[in-house]
Amino acid sequence: MTKRYVYISGEFVVEEDAKISVNDSAVLLGYSVTDSSRTFAHRPFKIERHVDRMYKSLKAARIDPGMSSAEMVRVTCEVTERNLEGLESHQDLWIVHTVSNGQTRLGPDPSVRESGATIIISNPFLDLRGWAGYYSTGCHAVTSTSRAIPAQSLDARIKNRSRMAYTLAEAEVKLVDSNAQGVILDVNGFVAENKGGNIFIVSEGELLTPTTVNCLAGISRETVLELATKLSIPTRETTLLPYDLYTADEMFFTSTPYCMMPATRFNGIDVGAGEVGPITKRLLAAWSELVDVDIVQQAREQR
Amino acid sequence: MTKRYVYISGEFVVEEDAKISVNDSAVLLGYSVTDSSRTFAHRPFKIERHVDRMYKSLKAARIDPGMSSAEMVRVTCEVTERNLEGLESHQDLWIVHTVSNGQTRLGPDPSVRESGATIIISNPFLDLRGWAGYYSTGCHAVTSTSRAIPAQSLDARIKNRSRMAYTLAEAEVKLVDSNAQGVILDVNGFVAENKGGNIFIVSEGELLTPTTVNCLAGISRETVLELATKLSIPTRETTLLPYDLYTADEMFFTSTPYCMMPATRFNGIDVGAGEVGPITKRLLAAWSELVDVDIVQQAREQR
Amino acid sequence: MTKRYVYISGEFVVEEDAKISVNDSAVLLGYSVTDSSRTFAHRPFKIERHVDRMYKSLKAARIDPGMSSAEMVRVTCEVTERNLEGLESHQDLWIVHTVSNGQTRLGPDPSVRESGATIIISNPFLDLRGWAGYYSTGCHAVTSTSRAIPAQSLDARIKNRSRMAYTLAEAEVKLVDSNAQGVILDVNGFVAENKGGNIFIVSEGELLTPTTVNCLAGISRETVLELATKLSIPTRETTLLPYDLYTADEMFFTSTPYCMMPATRFNGIDVGAGEVGPITKRLLAAWSELVDVDIVQQAREQR
Amino acid sequence: MTKRYVYISGEFVVEEDAKISVNDSAVLLGYSVTDSSRTFAHRPFKIERHVDRMYKSLKAARIDPGMSSAEMVRVTCEVTERNLEGLESHQDLWIVHTVSNGQTRLGPDPSVRESGATIIISNPFLDLRGWAGYYSTGCHAVTSTSRAIPAQSLDARIKNRSRMAYTLAEAEVKLVDSNAQGVILDVNGFVAENKGGNIFIVSEGELLTPTTVNCLAGISRETVLELATKLSIPTRETTLLPYDLYTADEMFFTSTPYCMMPATRFNGIDVGAGEVGPITKRLLAAWSELVDVDIVQQAREQR
Amino acid sequence: MTKRYVYISGEFVVEEDAKISVNDSAVLLGYSVTDSSRTFAHRPFKIERHVDRMYKSLKAARIDPGMSSAEMVRVTCEVTERNLEGLESHQDLWIVHTVSNGQTRLGPDPSVRESGATIIISNPFLDLRGWAGYYSTGCHAVTSTSRAIPAQSLDARIKNRSRMAYTLAEAEVKLVDSNAQGVILDVNGFVAENKGGNIFIVSEGELLTPTTVNCLAGISRETVLELATKLSIPTRETTLLPYDLYTADEMFFTSTPYCMMPATRFNGIDVGAGEVGPITKRLLAAWSELVDVDIVQQAREQR
Amino acid sequence: MTKRYVYISGEFVVEEDAKISVNDSAVLLGYSVTDSSRTFAHRPFKIERHVDRMYKSLKAARIDPGMSSAEMVRVTCEVTERNLEGLESHQDLWIVHTVSNGQTRLGPDPSVRESGATIIISNPFLDLRGWAGYYSTGCHAVTSTSRAIPAQSLDARIKNRSRMAYTLAEAEVKLVDSNAQGVILDVNGFVAENKGGNIFIVSEGELLTPTTVNCLAGISRETVLELATKLSIPTRETTLLPYDLYTADEMFFTSTPYCMMPATRFNGIDVGAGEVGPITKRLLAAWSELVDVDIVQQAREQR
Repeated sequence: MTKRYVYISGEFVVEEDAKISVNDSAVLLGYSVTDSSRTFAHRPFKIERHVDRMYKSLKAARIDPGMSSAEMVRVTCEVTERNLEGLESHQDLWIVHTVSNGQTRLGPDPSVRESGATIIISNPFLDLRGWAGYYSTGCHAVTSTSRAIPAQSLDARIKNRSRMAYTLAEAEVKLVDSNAQGVILDVNGFVAENKGGNIFIVSEGELLTPTTVNCLAGISRETVLELATKLSIPTRETTLLPYDLYTADEMFFTSTPYCMMPATRFNGIDVGAGEVGPITKRLLAAWSELVDVDIVQQAREQR
Repeated sequence: MTKRYVYISGEFVVEEDAKISVNDSAVLLGYSVTDSSRTFAHRPFKIERHVDRMYKSLKAARIDPGMSSAEMVRVTCEVTERNLEGLESHQDLWIVHTVSNGQTRLGPDPSVRESGATIIISNPFLDLRGWAGYYSTGCHAVTSTSRAIPAQSLDARIKNRSRMAYTLAEAEVKLVDSNAQGVILDVNGFVAENKGGNIFIVSEGELLTPTTVNCLAGISRETVLELATKLSIPTRETTLLPYDLYTADEMFFTSTPYCMMPATRFNGIDVGAGEVGPITKRLLAAWSELVDVDIVQQAREQR
Repeated sequence: MTKRYVYISGEFVVEEDAKISVNDSAVLLGYSVTDSSRTFAHRPFKIERHVDRMYKSLKAARIDPGMSSAEMVRVTCEVTERNLEGLESHQDLWIVHTVSNGQTRLGPDPSVRESGATIIISNPFLDLRGWAGYYSTGCHAVTSTSRAIPAQSLDARIKNRSRMAYTLAEAEVKLVDSNAQGVILDVNGFVAENKGGNIFIVSEGELLTPTTVNCLAGISRETVLELATKLSIPTRETTLLPYDLYTADEMFFTSTPYCMMPATRFNGIDVGAGEVGPITKRLLAAWSELVDVDIVQQAREQR
Repeated sequence: MTKRYVYISGEFVVEEDAKISVNDSAVLLGYSVTDSSRTFAHRPFKIERHVDRMYKSLKAARIDPGMSSAEMVRVTCEVTERNLEGLESHQDLWIVHTVSNGQTRLGPDPSVRESGATIIISNPFLDLRGWAGYYSTGCHAVTSTSRAIPAQSLDARIKNRSRMAYTLAEAEVKLVDSNAQGVILDVNGFVAENKGGNIFIVSEGELLTPTTVNCLAGISRETVLELATKLSIPTRETTLLPYDLYTADEMFFTSTPYCMMPATRFNGIDVGAGEVGPITKRLLAAWSELVDVDIVQQAREQR
Repeated sequence: MTKRYVYISGEFVVEEDAKISVNDSAVLLGYSVTDSSRTFAHRPFKIERHVDRMYKSLKAARIDPGMSSAEMVRVTCEVTERNLEGLESHQDLWIVHTVSNGQTRLGPDPSVRESGATIIISNPFLDLRGWAGYYSTGCHAVTSTSRAIPAQSLDARIKNRSRMAYTLAEAEVKLVDSNAQGVILDVNGFVAENKGGNIFIVSEGELLTPTTVNCLAGISRETVLELATKLSIPTRETTLLPYDLYTADEMFFTSTPYCMMPATRFNGIDVGAGEVGPITKRLLAAWSELVDVDIVQQAREQR
Repeated sequence: MTKRYVYISGEFVVEEDAKISVNDSAVLLGYSVTDSSRTFAHRPFKIERHVDRMYKSLKAARIDPGMSSAEMVRVTCEVTERNLEGLESHQDLWIVHTVSNGQTRLGPDPSVRESGATIIISNPFLDLRGWAGYYSTGCHAVTSTSRAIPAQSLDARIKNRSRMAYTLAEAEVKLVDSNAQGVILDVNGFVAENKGGNIFIVSEGELLTPTTVNCLAGISRETVLELATKLSIPTRETTLLPYDLYTADEMFFTSTPYCMMPATRFNGIDVGAGEVGPITKRLLAAWSELVDVDIVQQAREQR
C-alpha cells in the first residue's frame, strides 16, 4: 500500500508523522469539531453536505476555521485525490476532518488562541473487516449504562471529539458481548444514538428513527431516509424506547464507513425473527446502486 | 527563561516539539484523563494525592496507564525537578498530567489500542497574571447557559479532557463580561462548578460548597475545607442554587493555579458588599502559610 | 394627546387614577389572567380570538369573571372606541385585559373572594419606538439563565400576571446586551418563549417554532403560521434547541405590539448572515397587507 | 374596631383606600417581593430577621427598594405602632410588606421603572378563626396535582407575589376536602411546601423538614427548629416524600399567622393515631412561652 | 347463571376453584403479562390483535409462554366458546389472559423457573353497571398525585400485572369523588393514561390522544383512531397537559370493557359545556355499529 | 425434610397446596405488600421490626390487613415455630409475609374488595447455596439498563410485589455475567438498590450507602449501620454514583437471606484489589456474633 498523507493546517505530512502539539485545544480541552465522509469507488460521497454540516458545528462551537466552506471542500478533494493515487479499485478511503480551536494555554480563558485553527484532513484506509460479518448475520445491539450527553450540556449535532462519554458507553456494551454495538439512551431513557452512528427500526412496515433532539443528524441517516422515500417505504422521525427495539421487525445502525449495519439481537432478544430483514436489504441494495458499489461485497473483499 | 521538557511516554521532548499523533485516542476521541498540580516555592504540592486521584479517574475511565501510581509520582518528580532547574525562586510551575488510551483507529471498537497508554507530563510556566487582579478586586462570577454534563453521562470526578461543553460554557459567560468567570449549573439548576475550579460561598459565617455529585472533587477544594477546619470555620457540603450566591456574604473559586479566586459580583449583583471578604482573606493567608509562599504577592510579581 | 380611560369592573377611570386595592388577588397573589391585543388603523385585531383565549385561561385558572365572553368583547370594543377618539390616524392602541379573582384576604383559603372578579381593560398608547430599530437591523437574542416555569407547575398557556420569573429572565439577558431580547429555555434546555412573545426560526426553507408544550399559544404566533401557509412557506411545530438557533438562516420573535421582531444575532453569533432574512420580510409584508398598515413604517413614525 | 392605616411609599392611607396603579409592576408583572410577620401581645416578632430576609429577596429579585433595611425596620415599627393603637390586648396584627419595582409600562424592557419602588406596609387584623379548630383536631393535609415552581425557574426563597401556581395548587387540594391544607410537591415528587407555610413531621422521635432547596426559608420554620433544639428534640433538614408523611407519627405546618398548624390526616390516611401529637404540643407550648401569648387560646378568642 | 371455567396451563377449572401457587412468579414478583379483550354479541373482538400485542409484551418481558400465538388464539377461542354456552344473547364476557413466568423460588436469580409459564385464560362476566351511567352523564376525571411509571423503569406498553402504582393512583383519585376516574400524569406532568384505559380529548374539532411514549398502546385506543378516520374526524397523537383537558370541548376514556367512557368534568371544572359531546357520541355510535351491539343499551340492561 | 405449612388468612396449608385465587388483588393487580425476615439458629430475627415496617407499607399502600401488628407478630411466631419442628440445628428458615388487598374484580374501582385482606405467611427453607461462594470470592455487581421506579410513582419503601421492573433489571444484568448481581440506578443515574437488597461501599475508611430516597429501608441495611457504629466504623447515608463504586475500596449488598454479600467486581472492573475487604469481613463477623450463627459457615453447609 502506498503512503497516505495528512493535511495539517496547510502542510502535507505522511500519516505516521502526523502529529499535533500537546498544547492544541484538541488535546488540552477536547475542543474540536469533526466530520467523517468516505469515498465510494474513489468518489467522495456528499462531500459538500458533510462540509456544510461541519460548518454548522463550527459555528455553534464558536470556532473560526479561517477558511470558507468552499475552500474546505476544494482542499479536501485535493487531499483525497492525492491519497487515492495507487489505491486498488475495490478499495476506498475515509475522509476525516478535525478542526480544533488551535493552540491554547492554561489560563482564565480557555478560548484564547495562540495560533489559528488547527485543520486536519486525513484519509485512513477504509478497513471494513470489523463490520463485514454483520451484513449477513446482524450484530448484537446492546444498551449502555452511561447515557447520552443531553443537548443542554452539549448538543449531539455539534459533531465533536469530546467523546469520552461515548467511548465509555461502548466499553460497557462490550461487557455483554465482544461483538455488541452500543445503543445509547438519553437521560429520559429514550433511544439516542450509537457511539458513531444512528439507529433505525422497521415496525409494521414503517421505518422509524429518533428525531435529532438527542442525536447526531447523520448524513448516512439522511441518506437512508431519502432512499426509503424513493422506495416508497413510509418513514417517521419519532421517540423510540427499548420496547420499540425489543418488538421491532428489523433494526439497523447507520454510519459513514459501513453505511448500514443490521442488528438481529437487542439485549439478548431476537429482533424480529433474528435475521436481517427485507426492508433493510432493500435499502442497502438501493444504497449500493446509488453509489455504484456493492457495499456488502466490498466489505468482504476489502484489503 | 530556560527550556522546559515534556515527558511523553518515556521520552523527554522540548515543549515546542511536544506532539502526539493525530490517531491518539486523546485527539480522535477526547479519551484521556488529566490532573493538574503545581509547585509552591519549587516544591510539588500534594503530588501523591493528585496522582492518587488521577488513578481513580483512570480506573473509572477503563484506561490502563501501564505504570503504578508510585512510579507515576517518581517520574513526575523527576520531570518537574528537571524543569525547575534555572527557575527563579519566586517562580513556580504547573505539573500537568494527561494519560490517554494510546493510539487507536476508527472502527467498531473505539477502545482498541494500537499502542500503550500515552502519558504526558508537562510543566508549563505558572503565569498567574490573568488572575492576579482578582485577589484584590474579585472577579465577576457569571452563570453559563450550557449546563454541566450529568454524572449519568460522564462523572465530573473523572477529570478528563472531553471538555468542549465546559469551554463553550465559559465562552457564553464571556459575553457578559470579558473578565467573567463561569458558574456552571447542573441540569437541575444547582451550582456545579467552574470550567476548571470549584465554587465556595460564605453565608452567615459558614463555608459552603456543592457536594461532588455534580462536580470535580478538587484537591484545592479539599485543601480549603482542611484549612477552614483548622481555622474553626464551620463548613458544609450541600446543594447550592443561584439564590445562595446572590445572597452570600463572600464567594470564591478554587483551582490549582490560583488556589483561591475571590468573586465580588455574581450575574451583575454585588456579592455581599462587593468586596473580598474576611473569611476569604483568612483562608488565603492560611494557604500561603501552609505552602510558605505569599500567594497573592507571587501572582503579582511572577513573570 | 387626549386622556385615555381605563375600565375597572364597570367604572371608567382616567388612566392616571386607575388603581386597584392592595388587597386585590392580583396584588396579593399574582392571581390574575391577562391578554393583550391591539388595534391596526384603529381596528381591534382578532379581538374575539383574544377574548376566547382569555376565557380558556380563566377556566383553567378557576376564575369566574362574572361576564360572558360575548359581553367581554362588547365592553372591550366600547372602551377601545372611546379611547381611540382623537387619536391620529397613524397611531394605534394596545388592548390590555387583566382579570383577577377580586379582592381577597390572607387566610387558610386564598381563593376566598371578598368581591367579584376585578376586570381591567386598558388601552395604553402603542409606543413602538423601543422596537422600531429591530425591523431593519434585527435584535440580539440571548438565552437567560432562569428557565421557563414548567407546565406541571403553571401552564404557560394560562396567560397570567405571575410573571416575576420571566421578568428576571429578561433582566439576566440584559447583562449581555442592553438591547438583547430574551430566549427562555425550559427545564430540558429546549427553547420555550420570550418574556412576552414566541420564537420562530427559518431553517432550510422551513418555518419552525416550538409546540405549545412549553410556551404561550400566542395569537401573533398563530397569525404567522396562517400567513406562512398562505404564502406556501412550509411550517412545523417542533422541539427547538439553541443549536437550531445558532445554525438557523433567519430568526424572529412574535408578539402583539410589534407583530414580528427579527433577530440577527443569537448569543453573540450571527443568525444566518446576520441580516434580516427574506422569509421574515415576506411574512412581515403579508401581515402589513392583512391589517392594511405598514407595520415597519408605523413603528418608525409613531410618536 | 378602629381604622387601620396602610403605608404606601411614604403615605399613610386608610386601608379601604389603599390602592396602587394598574401600571404598577406588582400588577402588570407580578414583580414584587413580600414578607409577613406579626405581633404577639402587640410586640412585633423577629422583625429584623423578617426584614433581613426580605432584603435578600429584593437583592436576588433585582429590586432596589430605595431604603436601607434599618430604615425599613424603623418605618415598619412606626406603622405597626400606629395601627396597634386602640387594639384590645388579646388581639394582634399581621405585619405585611410588599415591595414592587414601581410603576412600569409595556415595552421591550419590563424592568424599566417609571417611579421608585412601591413600598406597601400593612397591618391586617390577625383573624385566626379559620385555623383555630386545627389546633385541637388537626387539619387534613392533601397533595396538589400542580407542582412547586422549581428553583431554576424562580427560587422559592425569593418570597414573592407571583403566586398563582400556589393559589391553584391550593384550589386543587380543596377538591378533596374544603378544610384541606395543601402539600405541594416539587417536580421530583419531593415534599416542598404549603402555599404559605413549611411542613414538618415527627418520625421515630426526630423532627424532620425539607431543606430549603425547594421551599421558602420560613422564619416560623426557623423558630420551630430553634425551639426543638432548646427542648432537645433532634432535628434534621432532609428530603421528604409522601411515604414519610403517610408513616409519620406527627405532622404540622408552620406559618406566620398560626405559628404551627397540626395535621392529623394526609390524603385520607391518619397521621400517626390521627391526633395532635405530643411533640407538636410541646413545641407549640414552647412557642407560646417564647412570645408570652397562649397561641391556641388567642386563636379561639380572637375577634 | 351457568358456571364459568378458567383455563390454567392446560387445565379447565371452575372459576371459584381457579387458583395459583403462592410461589408463582405472578404472586412473588408481580412478574406476569396480561391482556384483556371481550366479546360483542358473543363474538371475540380483535382477538388476534390482542394476542399479538400480548406476545410483544411477553417478548419484551422475557417470558417464554411455551405456546405459539396462533395456538394461544385457538385455545382462547375454545375457552371462550365454552364459557359463552348458556349465556343470554344480550350478555357478553371478558377475555382475560395472564401469563406469568411460572413458579419460582426466592434466590439470587428471580427468573429461575421451577415450572413452565403459567397461562391463565378466564372469562369474567362483563358486568358494566359500574360504568353504565357515565354514557349519559359522563364521569368526573381527576388527576392522581402518583405519577405513571416512566418507560425507562417499565414500559407501559408491556401490559403487566405489577400495577400497584396504578391502583394507588386510582385510590387517590377517589378521595375527590367516589365516582372519579383517574388521569395519571407522567413524571413531566404530561397526561399519560388511566389505570386501565387511554385518554382522548376533542379540541377545535380535532381528536387528540397522547402518543404511546407514556401509556399503553390500547386496542380500544386504536379502534377509536380507526373509527375517527372512517368518520373523517382529524386525529393527532401528541403531548397533552392538564390545560388541554381543562379547555377541551369533549373528553373520554377508552378501555376494553366499556369501549368509551365520556368525562364531563375534570378536576372539578366542566369539560366543554359539561355534557357528553357530539364527536364522542358519533364515535360511540360507530363502534356500536362496528360490533353490531348497542354498547350503551347493553351496559344499561346487562345483568 | 419434614413438610412445611403456609398460613393463608387463618388456614394452615401444606406448601405444595398453598394457592390463592386468580382473582386475588395480588394476582390481578400486583397489589400486595410483603416483608421477609429469617431465623438464625431457629430464632426469628428482629421480627417486631420487620412487622412494624410492613405495617408502614400497608398504611401507605392503603391496605387494611384486618389484624393488629401485635397479632401479626404472634401468628408469625406460631407459624414459624411449627415449621421449625424437625429442622436440623444448622438449618434455618425464611419468614415471608405477603398481604394483599384480598379478592377483587375487574371494574371501575380496583380497590373494591370481595373479601378481607389475604394474609400469607410462609417459611421457605433457607437455601443459601446460590450465594455461598460469594462470601469468599465476592460477586460481580453490574448495573441494569432499566432504572428504579421513582418514588413519585411508587415509593420503594413500600415493600411490594409489583416487582416486574426489578425482575427485568436483574435479567438484563445476567446478560453480562450469569453470576452478576444487579445494581439498579434511579432516573438520575444515582445508585438505588439491588432487586432485593441494599448496596454499601467502603471508601477511605468510611461506610457509605444511599439514603432511602430511592430504595428500600432494609432491616439488613439498618443492622449493618448499627454494627458499624458498634465497631466505630464511620457511616454516612449519601448519594452514590457508579464512579463511587468503581473507585471504592470495598463493596457489598445486604439482604435478609444472605445478610451481606461481598462484591469484588463492578461492571468488569475490580472493586479495590478485587478481594473481599477487611471492613466487610469485620461487619460480617460482628453479625455472626450478634446472631450466634457463623453465617458463612452455615451458607456452605446448609442443605
